[in-house]
Amino acid sequence: MEKEISQAVISRLPRYFRYLEELRLSGVERISSQELSKLMKVTASQIRQDFNNFGGFGQQGYGYNVEFLYQEIAKILGLDRKHNFIIIGAGNLGRALGNYLNFERRGFLFKGMFDQNPDLIGTTVRGTTVMPMEELEDFIRNNDIEIAVLTIPKTGAVSVADRLASCNIRGIWNFAHVDLNLPGTIQVENVHLSDSLMKLSYNLTE
Amino acid sequence: MEKEISQAVISRLPRYFRYLEELRLSGVERISSQELSKLMKVTASQIRQDFNNFGGFGQQGYGYNVEFLYQEIAKILGLDRKHNFIIIGAGNLGRALGNYLNFERRGFLFKGMFDQNPDLIGTTVRGTTVMPMEELEDFIRNNDIEIAVLTIPKTGAVSVADRLASCNIRGIWNFAHVDLNLPGTIQVENVHLSDSLMKLSYNLTE
Repeated sequence: MEKEISQAVISRLPRYFRYLEELRLSGVERISSQELSKLMKVTASQIRQDFNNFGGFGQQGYGYNVEFLYQEIAKILGLDRKHNFIIIGAGNLGRALGNYLNFERRGFLFKGMFDQNPDLIGTTVRGTTVMPMEELEDFIRNNDIEIAVLTIPKTGAVSVADRLASCNIRGIWNFAHVDLNLPGTIQVENVHLSDSLMKLSYNLTE
Repeated sequence: MEKEISQAVISRLPRYFRYLEELRLSGVERISSQELSKLMKVTASQIRQDFNNFGGFGQQGYGYNVEFLYQEIAKILGLDRKHNFIIIGAGNLGRALGNYLNFERRGFLFKGMFDQNPDLIGTTVRGTTVMPMEELEDFIRNNDIEIAVLTIPKTGAVSVADRLASCNIRGIWNFAHVDLNLPGTIQVENVHLSDSLMKLSYNLTE
């Protein structure tokens, strides 16, 4: 991709992917931007603008080829290759994510889990044994780990993120309730659940 | 609030709240938009614009009063009152959210949990017993439940959401990987974890 695509556009891609997968599974072969617009409740012009960032995906008069569009968006999202990930923090949320089989289906492979709590070390999550934090760096280097999922309290998150940076992790999926300040070479995607709940609360209050 | 505030502004409020809470706990009494800008890595003009949506919070030449700003944003976010919530889906993610004590600290009170799986019904999560789905409507009506958290697979989510709508739930925090189409009177906040992971994957791929 030569051109810088805005994060707002990127944020909408997974939703397109989700709808295209449904259409594909339902046996739909072609869809116009008008039909997709109605289904997804966004304007057809928004859809065309978003897709134009990627060359437009060759819409003809009679619409997009669903299978082609699905495959192209999958490629753009990097879903055509495998991503090895580890989870740091074997509490409830970490275990929930480790058990989530859908990630596997998308090419995200759960390779290891870490915690500092002696009571959790040695327990298993979907066949993976929880390892002590001392083994983190070696494991990342020896197992081609691309993504670390951080499901630890915010107090420990910053120092763990620094350790991850020092062994060249490429991406962090951060559930810790703190902003990580890391070199620009490391991609961080935050899921701040409390922020999301507060947004709901605002909309209920207003 | 007379004026319609954009969801983009709303999305940023919880982050301001988080930083103000830290500042307050650190004993900081006043902060200028420039200092806040440096700390949060957003422009001072963005901060002023965001705050102007709510009357500006009376910045003087020497900055904002941290405690006042914190309390005002808490009020705007509806954190000055209690919100009763239930969780539907007693799997790993539901249990993780039920056990998350920080929600309680913000005024979100965990009142009940539901599942259709007989193996889970009767088990407990933080002192709350998992109830069968048949009891959902009565429980909501009798316990002043404002928010339902949906942590069930997408196949069941749409019909459960319709049941929630019929007993006048006010908000749904939706973790099911499907868009819910509900009357505009019901506020829905989606957390599509796979979408977030795909966004990370895009940024790693690019």
